[in-house]
Amino acid sequence: MKFSEHAWKSIEDVFSEIINHPFIRELASGNLPPEVFKEYLKQDMLYLQSYGKAIAMLGSRATNHKDTAYWLKNAYEGLAAEKEMHDIYLKKWNIQETPEANTACEIYSNFILAIAAYMPYEIAVAGIMPCFWVYEQIGLTIVNKSNVDNPYIEWIQTYSSKQYSDSVQEGIILMDELAEKSSDETKSEMLKYFRKGTIYELLFYQGLM
Amino acid sequence: MKFSEHAWKSIEDVFSEIINHPFIRELASGNLPPEVFKEYLKQDMLYLQSYGKAIAMLGSRATNHKDTAYWLKNAYEGLAAEKEMHDIYLKKWNIQETPEANTACEIYSNFILAIAAYMPYEIAVAGIMPCFWVYEQIGLTIVNKSNVDNPYIEWIQTYSSKQYSDSVQEGIILMDELAEKSSDETKSEMLKYFRKGTIYELLFYQGLM
Amino acid sequence: MKFSEHAWKSIEDVFSEIINHPFIRELASGNLPPEVFKEYLKQDMLYLQSYGKAIAMLGSRATNHKDTAYWLKNAYEGLAAEKEMHDIYLKKWNIQETPEANTACEIYSNFILAIAAYMPYEIAVAGIMPCFWVYEQIGLTIVNKSNVDNPYIEWIQTYSSKQYSDSVQEGIILMDELAEKSSDETKSEMLKYFRKGTIYELLFYQGLM
Amino acid sequence: MKFSEHAWKSIEDVFSEIINHPFIRELASGNLPPEVFKEYLKQDMLYLQSYGKAIAMLGSRATNHKDTAYWLKNAYEGLAAEKEMHDIYLKKWNIQETPEANTACEIYSNFILAIAAYMPYEIAVAGIMPCFWVYEQIGLTIVNKSNVDNPYIEWIQTYSSKQYSDSVQEGIILMDELAEKSSDETKSEMLKYFRKGTIYELLFYQGLM
Repeated sequence: MKFSEHAWKSIEDVFSEIINHPFIRELASGNLPPEVFKEYLKQDMLYLQSYGKAIAMLGSRATNHKDTAYWLKNAYEGLAAEKEMHDIYLKKWNIQETPEANTACEIYSNFILAIAAYMPYEIAVAGIMPCFWVYEQIGLTIVNKSNVDNPYIEWIQTYSSKQYSDSVQEGIILMDELAEKSSDETKSEMLKYFRKGTIYELLFYQGLM
Repeated sequence: MKFSEHAWKSIEDVFSEIINHPFIRELASGNLPPEVFKEYLKQDMLYLQSYGKAIAMLGSRATNHKDTAYWLKNAYEGLAAEKEMHDIYLKKWNIQETPEANTACEIYSNFILAIAAYMPYEIAVAGIMPCFWVYEQIGLTIVNKSNVDNPYIEWIQTYSSKQYSDSVQEGIILMDELAEKSSDETKSEMLKYFRKGTIYELLFYQGLM
Repeated sequence: MKFSEHAWKSIEDVFSEIINHPFIRELASGNLPPEVFKEYLKQDMLYLQSYGKAIAMLGSRATNHKDTAYWLKNAYEGLAAEKEMHDIYLKKWNIQETPEANTACEIYSNFILAIAAYMPYEIAVAGIMPCFWVYEQIGLTIVNKSNVDNPYIEWIQTYSSKQYSDSVQEGIILMDELAEKSSDETKSEMLKYFRKGTIYELLFYQGLM
Repeated sequence: MKFSEHAWKSIEDVFSEIINHPFIRELASGNLPPEVFKEYLKQDMLYLQSYGKAIAMLGSRATNHKDTAYWLKNAYEGLAAEKEMHDIYLKKWNIQETPEANTACEIYSNFILAIAAYMPYEIAVAGIMPCFWVYEQIGLTIVNKSNVDNPYIEWIQTYSSKQYSDSVQEGIILMDELAEKSSDETKSEMLKYFRKGTIYELLFYQGLM
């Protein structure tokens, strides 16, 4: 079994809580109150600033050119695609940016920033992977249940798109390659931080409703 | 006078040495021995790995989202364009990558890596700016003197392209904005590291012939 | 008014909550249940590992030799003195180390780690200053109310000692020097992070009882 | 054979060049021109500023508390002892500090700064180890050949002292523990950077005479 398969299995309980969280369920059905989505979007924009910095830090610490290039592409293209989607909603609902992160956003941001700067690279990668892998799995899980007149369809399509999935798959392969070269001790730390990262994802939704 | 104009004036003597260095003169005329260019290309590929990491580090330390986005784009698009140009020559001349940096490449790489990680962000930006501004100015200076049958025309076109210039201009504006908010002491350090960076550019060419 | 005086005034409401928190009140009176103190000590040991790393990071990013030397001394002597005090309690009460940080410890740790690595140095200094200034002020506030037969007297004496105060004073002077050279915008960010850091201190105690 | 023994064997040729370099030979005999020693001291003071920052960075990235504590102690006590020795000479010969690093000092400084910030921790440790291990071996090699009326006796005694040796031995054990847990690929990179670091030591002396 690949490390990534093992890692995903080890967080299925948390992912189940995420996918059944009211925020995700009502997003999928289209019944999520617009006020909640607006607040989510504001917090997500703040989170993505830290995400960009953390991913850039990973890129700076990668030990080969291919990894550096992946993180730069992930950060650049990923942030651009998400910004495009955000802009649709910002215009549609006339949302103003907020400078103040809520607690869940702040502590999740500090988690990814801290591990990217201090942890051994392999462990930092494992801890940050849920940021985009969990999003992709949410997208893929709910896209078939969602109608095109769902007001959140652009969000759902962004995270279930082929482009997004391809980028996530590249990241998973990169993580598996790192795990393969790692000691058992390091792999066990990678699993621990992979789970921690997933729990912070859940926390982010819990911070909203 | 903008900080960037002041900065450029302060290194005109070094730039003059660069533009008159045999490597650049013979590149412009097309008379550069292919062996020298091949060696340059190998070293440049190694240098760009460190450049990507240093720029990613700047992106991680930028104090606003616009700056982070600029560095990610600079690194991602810049490295992609240069890789494309490199690949043309790698194929044309069947060049093998080398794992060993020469002295000039190694010490220039360590300079940009060190300042990006430790220096105050403004000063690090000023020290790294010559990496791409000097290249653009070389490109713009020699493009009109160079024939299309110059074997190095792809190199010359890459660094004199509108896309490359636009990215450099964005960087210059970013540096000017930082300078505007900086104390005189910081601005003076920025000038010092801008000059240091330019001298390392010269050194890189001197390491080749 | 010095920056540090202004900063302290701006967090007096939070400090008042800290000094009146049951953990501190019962520590001062000696009535704190040993189980709570043991749990505090375990969490504090974990916190100090992150503190050591964050302070080392500040030392690496300081812009002059005097600052680097201060942070190295603060980290080395500070951690040694605290370890000595911890060891007294570890022996007295046969406490085992725990590998698991509680939530408050983890999010406070990630806060100081993140700001030390990514924020401009001045702002990071202001955000980390409450870690030891608040401790000193707690020590000085409660030392006169506490009997020598208070089971927590070693804790109280450590943080109200002349050696500890001297080190804190040096840090305050360093912060004031940084503030003096900073723009209004930076000073305002310093205040913001100084307050954030103080709130995390409060949170740490709230995580215990 | 321990990793450290293997590492030292692999650089014996470079160490032999160092120990036979005129700077070291004349230091040992006492015949080194004071002007050369003064210039060395000025450059060494600049180098030690970068050394302190690089060691602090290692401390921030260490993966266990014992390592962090070692680097803090190494940096704090080491720099203090060297400062004491420097001060003797600064007073004796009325030496003024210089703000300008020579080329050898600058490129060695950037080497240790860059590897401490970007390289995997194990490899960074191996690359920085020669900074103090080579000094100790120079001290131990020349102390018996040197008279007490040698004008450089304080220098020689500092680096051949029991305190200095003990600290170096701790560092060697730490490096060996890291090597033991590392893959062959990582160990081979450790050897490569250990040799690089030793060559930079040689370069530093070559920059003086």
